[in-house]
Amino acid sequence: MKHGARNDIPAEVVAIKRGSVMAQVEAQIVGTEYRVTSVMTVDSLDELGLKEGDRVHVLAKAVNVLLVRP
Amino acid sequence: MKHGARNDIPAEVVAIKRGSVMAQVEAQIVGTEYRVTSVMTVDSLDELGLKEGDRVHVLAKAVNVLLVRP
Amino acid sequence: MKHGARNDIPAEVVAIKRGSVMAQVEAQIVGTEYRVTSVMTVDSLDELGLKEGDRVHVLAKAVNVLLVRP
Amino acid sequence: MKHGARNDIPAEVVAIKRGSVMAQVEAQIVGTEYRVTSVMTVDSLDELGLKEGDRVHVLAKAVNVLLVRP
Amino acid sequence: MKHGARNDIPAEVVAIKRGSVMAQVEAQIVGTEYRVTSVMTVDSLDELGLKEGDRVHVLAKAVNVLLVRP
Amino acid sequence: MKHGARNDIPAEVVAIKRGSVMAQVEAQIVGTEYRVTSVMTVDSLDELGLKEGDRVHVLAKAVNVLLVRP
Repeated sequence: MKHGARNDIPAEVVAIKRGSVMAQVEAQIVGTEYRVTSVMTVDSLDELGLKEGDRVHVLAKAVNVLLVRP
Repeated sequence: MKHGARNDIPAEVVAIKRGSVMAQVEAQIVGTEYRVTSVMTVDSLDELGLKEGDRVHVLAKAVNVLLVRP
Repeated sequence: MKHGARNDIPAEVVAIKRGSVMAQVEAQIVGTEYRVTSVMTVDSLDELGLKEGDRVHVLAKAVNVLLVRP
Repeated sequence: MKHGARNDIPAEVVAIKRGSVMAQVEAQIVGTEYRVTSVMTVDSLDELGLKEGDRVHVLAKAVNVLLVRP
Repeated sequence: MKHGARNDIPAEVVAIKRGSVMAQVEAQIVGTEYRVTSVMTVDSLDELGLKEGDRVHVLAKAVNVLLVRP
Repeated sequence: MKHGARNDIPAEVVAIKRGSVMAQVEAQIVGTEYRVTSVMTVDSLDELGLKEGDRVHVLAKAVNVLLVRP
């Protein structure tokens, strides 16, 4: 499957938090200390069958990325 | 300024492309080979006064991050 | 911190609702009766340490703003 | 038409910028000095038939609103 | 009300899941077997007063639609 | 590649419009008259190598889908 999102970075799942509707998954970018967080529906989490240690790709459309000057 | 976005990663601007309404800014995550892309309005680009080599922070809300299994 | 979001409006927090994963924060735009609502992760809410009466800025990227004709 | 977006604020169009694919519309929130900006496709702009002075409603889903502490 | 979202498809509500802050609504595109899912705040769900069998329109801004090659 | 977006519908590309930074792709949902539109960067369009007649999948995260009552 080839996608059109500009941002696609490999990461490893490090933490998962489940609510009744939404779930939060934290992943660490491979080879770095940087962590990224995704929020998805619990249904999506179950469909992906994610658990800690799993390798994923972190996707984000460029329109959803905000740049700030420190 | 303290923000509520879960994803906040330092990066350096490496390429800028300007259109008439939108602009595309590519940045490399500090200490890595990973590149991220942001699309913003040209007005925002001018307001930020970004140019290649500038340090930025890359922000994305967790709801806008999609995880995929390779 | 200078950001690239086109929409940046001062407001005051008037209500907070916490779930297990997500939280909802309602704020009133300064000098008006208009209310805006933001949804964020509970982690972000705790990191921002928001409580009723706090001054915030409401940010939204222009691509996420939809105009409708009444 | 009743919608499910948490943020719905009346405004008046004050500026329009057209590109080849995207367009940028600036509007002033009714009764205030606050300005908001929306980016949409040129097709959407033409379909809405917007011009300066038109009254609109500015919609944004709560998940797309980011709160920051000044 | 005329809106500027490029994607507007009629559907019928087939399932609703309520959390404490967020709710998930599943709808079937009219005349098809295709299902779409929307996540909104519980407040929005209550304001819309949605229940199974209701006719809705499914809106999405073009910037939020990702195309992938199978 | 398995993804976590709730909305995934097969479609066929019917029209492509290129700008300098952004591109607009229109696709028809397979077996229906419904059309959907995606906006992406020109870089993404070129990377996907899309042309009219190509089969794609239309993805959207549930948080980016807005339901309205007609």
